[in-house]
Amino acid sequence: MISWKNLDTLAAFGKLNALKGKVKLQEAMSGENGAKRVAEYAVPMACGLNYNYAAKQVDGDVLCALAELAKEAQLSEKYEALYNGEVINTGEKRLVLHQLCRGQLGGDVTADGVNKREFYVSQQQKAADFANKVHAGEITNAQGEKFTTVVQIGIGGSDLGPRAMYLALENWAKQNGCFKMEAKFISNVDPDDAASVLKGIDVSRSLFVLVSKSGTTLETLTNESFVKDALKNAGLDASKHMVAVTSETSPLAKSSDYLAAFFMDDYIGGRYSSSSCVGGVVLSLAFGPEVFARFLNGAAEEDKLAKNPDILQNPDMLDALIGVYEHNVQGYPATAVLPYSQALNRFPAHLQQLDMESNGKSVNRFGEPVNYATGPVIFGEPGTNGQHSFYQLLHQGTDIVPLQFVGFRKNQAGMDVNIQGSTSQQKLCANVAAQIMAFACGKQDKNPNKSFAGGRPSSIITGEQLTPETLGALLAHFENKVMFQGFLWNLNSFDQEGVQLGKVLAKRVLAHETDGALKAYSDLLDI
Amino acid sequence: MISWKNLDTLAAFGKLNALKGKVKLQEAMSGENGAKRVAEYAVPMACGLNYNYAAKQVDGDVLCALAELAKEAQLSEKYEALYNGEVINTGEKRLVLHQLCRGQLGGDVTADGVNKREFYVSQQQKAADFANKVHAGEITNAQGEKFTTVVQIGIGGSDLGPRAMYLALENWAKQNGCFKMEAKFISNVDPDDAASVLKGIDVSRSLFVLVSKSGTTLETLTNESFVKDALKNAGLDASKHMVAVTSETSPLAKSSDYLAAFFMDDYIGGRYSSSSCVGGVVLSLAFGPEVFARFLNGAAEEDKLAKNPDILQNPDMLDALIGVYEHNVQGYPATAVLPYSQALNRFPAHLQQLDMESNGKSVNRFGEPVNYATGPVIFGEPGTNGQHSFYQLLHQGTDIVPLQFVGFRKNQAGMDVNIQGSTSQQKLCANVAAQIMAFACGKQDKNPNKSFAGGRPSSIITGEQLTPETLGALLAHFENKVMFQGFLWNLNSFDQEGVQLGKVLAKRVLAHETDGALKAYSDLLDI
Repeated sequence: MISWKNLDTLAAFGKLNALKGKVKLQEAMSGENGAKRVAEYAVPMACGLNYNYAAKQVDGDVLCALAELAKEAQLSEKYEALYNGEVINTGEKRLVLHQLCRGQLGGDVTADGVNKREFYVSQQQKAADFANKVHAGEITNAQGEKFTTVVQIGIGGSDLGPRAMYLALENWAKQNGCFKMEAKFISNVDPDDAASVLKGIDVSRSLFVLVSKSGTTLETLTNESFVKDALKNAGLDASKHMVAVTSETSPLAKSSDYLAAFFMDDYIGGRYSSSSCVGGVVLSLAFGPEVFARFLNGAAEEDKLAKNPDILQNPDMLDALIGVYEHNVQGYPATAVLPYSQALNRFPAHLQQLDMESNGKSVNRFGEPVNYATGPVIFGEPGTNGQHSFYQLLHQGTDIVPLQFVGFRKNQAGMDVNIQGSTSQQKLCANVAAQIMAFACGKQDKNPNKSFAGGRPSSIITGEQLTPETLGALLAHFENKVMFQGFLWNLNSFDQEGVQLGKVLAKRVLAHETDGALKAYSDLLDI
Repeated sequence: MISWKNLDTLAAFGKLNALKGKVKLQEAMSGENGAKRVAEYAVPMACGLNYNYAAKQVDGDVLCALAELAKEAQLSEKYEALYNGEVINTGEKRLVLHQLCRGQLGGDVTADGVNKREFYVSQQQKAADFANKVHAGEITNAQGEKFTTVVQIGIGGSDLGPRAMYLALENWAKQNGCFKMEAKFISNVDPDDAASVLKGIDVSRSLFVLVSKSGTTLETLTNESFVKDALKNAGLDASKHMVAVTSETSPLAKSSDYLAAFFMDDYIGGRYSSSSCVGGVVLSLAFGPEVFARFLNGAAEEDKLAKNPDILQNPDMLDALIGVYEHNVQGYPATAVLPYSQALNRFPAHLQQLDMESNGKSVNRFGEPVNYATGPVIFGEPGTNGQHSFYQLLHQGTDIVPLQFVGFRKNQAGMDVNIQGSTSQQKLCANVAAQIMAFACGKQDKNPNKSFAGGRPSSIITGEQLTPETLGALLAHFENKVMFQGFLWNLNSFDQEGVQLGKVLAKRVLAHETDGALKAYSDLLDI
């Protein structure tokens, strides 16, 4: 029997609180003990990835308390309930089924009279068939010319995840002979966003993917009109250049405005939708369906690992637990995600949505205010760029910011240069290794301005190379981490009521139904 | 006589602390009082911009205490000392002269026997002449073909600021007939960064701008070699495709490897260098020297406003003071920068460096530890994109994050679409107005999950359009804000000792001179 309890009512959380400040990284990571930690504090992830938490402020006692917490919070049972199709999104009374896009962890899940795994697979197959026909020149523009560019029109989860995944695999695909079409993305309602993308492409050879689950997203419908105008002005039939990704009940679903429609449903939240058709159509068009299938396989493998009730063998659960220890016991307010991989340059922006929109809440699943901090601020840029930017604060600032590094032994593009006895890839890797130790151990100097306090915790996910499989595993790791943290904080991680008020007020501004300060701001902006 | 004192030793800071929680935005911003605040709590910035702080948690009492604090902390005197060429960067014993690139606020500043204003102007003129010759086809590739692309190779301040400025003006320049050359940027030591840029350009028509003040930046020199290899492999003479931006004492300064060299000096920090040749060469090549000159004029106008000792007429100083009130009195740990302008999509990344590298310190100018929080975490994405991402946490999370909005009445590209009775630009503006009010006032609902507590402070900078002038003013505003906050926290905002330890350790890894955990991490990454 699952019971949903607030974090601060759990006995294990009390024990954990008593362990505040227990581990001093400066000592723990020094000498041979440090090497021993790097060897021991590691958990295999899917597809050859590895989660190493040696430089986190944990030891046997803390890990023991975290294991108790995981058990008392029933993390495994809740995960099981989720993948077996219980109504985990209680606010909106919905199942949470994005994992079924890539595998099946439990029994059959039926909703609305449909086997949902079969439904998602059928949509994926439809997207694959469509992409294959586009690549084969069976679906072309009116002149019979092949489409060369795919443009995704979507915002939030219909943009950030798919865009980050595209950028993550673009160079890999070029290097491995499976780059099919360039992809572009239009998201912002700022008309300069669409204008800029349209100026950079040949619209007559472009296929637009309109993504909106409800079919009512203001930004997306506005940008659709923007694009349709551009197509019309170029003398083209818009309906021959557009497909829709939406739910079957949306106004877009059966419209003749689109060449084809691909379906998702209410059981997949926007920020968890990269492995549904929201990511599948654009990525299958860009790289071919086989690449997208490999990405899904990587994610499915990681999802399986997340079932393990032993936290020392469950990298997603362990990462979640350590994050709660840092946020709620150690009191660190933010987390930085720092991939040492240029291809992951928009991955932090995706995680920012995934994490902050899921767990940036103040009431629990029952609508009661919680008495503890929930989701932290998430930010990040790729290394080594960040080293020359905000790392100063991370090393010597007054606040401690826990860090999540990612690093790969091999780069993607197959080009490199050897300077001063090492390749660029070696320099990249040397930097991330060095940073972990600089943050953990610091260094005393007689000039206090050159002293480093250390004691700044980090973990690193390492792998051989960023590929479709490892990218899928990486994405699933963070999705599962965020869901486990939601369970720990007793939140509904699957709604986003906090975005509604702004929408309501914006409509009021556009209808000129305002007074007071809202009218004053509207006047200031000449609306 | 200037005295440098810690924030917590100032009497006015004590008074300010007593005003914690004084202003409830939910009440202050309601009804006609809210409209009155929007009208009154506004300060003109340069070039028609306006800083509106109606939705900040201030009132007459708080502003009075902030004015006292500004006076007691001698903000105006310290600013004057800076622009008159005193050694403000005490750690490195250097003057701080980036403002001289765009104007002269005080008397002549002479250093190393040179009038520095004349020196910077001469370098700017040299860059202008060079750019004009490239545009006129007087400087070409070996085949006599015009250069079509400029690629900046630099990292940190040699990348983030110039890149953000280029993106901010790209569409404006295209729309206004002054777009000369496409610009690209290579920064990361990850070889996939350079590989990706090189695959996307015609190297035979590309001019590379190598930017490193010291001439020793590892990433930049490595990427230079990467690019030189590519040029060589294409049968090209690298020295005919490269210019350098560096200091006169650097190994790059007089090398025959470059077509030309443009100089900056040690009195301009990387993160403050966008208005020096670091930004000037690439932006003059991309948009023409006149556009860059207009950008500098905008910055110079804003610098002048920052001289005003009356905080109610000094938007840069006031913004700095309110930020310190929020961080040190109200206790908010992070700040979000949210431009409602797609063109400013990398401006937050630049501010992240500017702010966090300047003020992420734990010791004061004298090397003594401070007892208060210094620089906050800075992050942001353009609106409306952010609304569909992390705004959930901003509205309903357990931590309050102060917000800095930016909005313009007109877009840049001159294309728009009217849907449901409003243009995209109007929708964009309506959203930012709505967000300010939603954050400030919130909204009660009988369903606690749909309730918004409000009381979340924001300010907005508004303007007619993002142009070279307003971009310059915007940049200078934040530079000055950061410097004033450095004065308030009694920090040296111009060094970055916190980045050194990582560099030292990375070298040790590459030389295989490691043991313990550092060796273990190196092994993990196959270095």
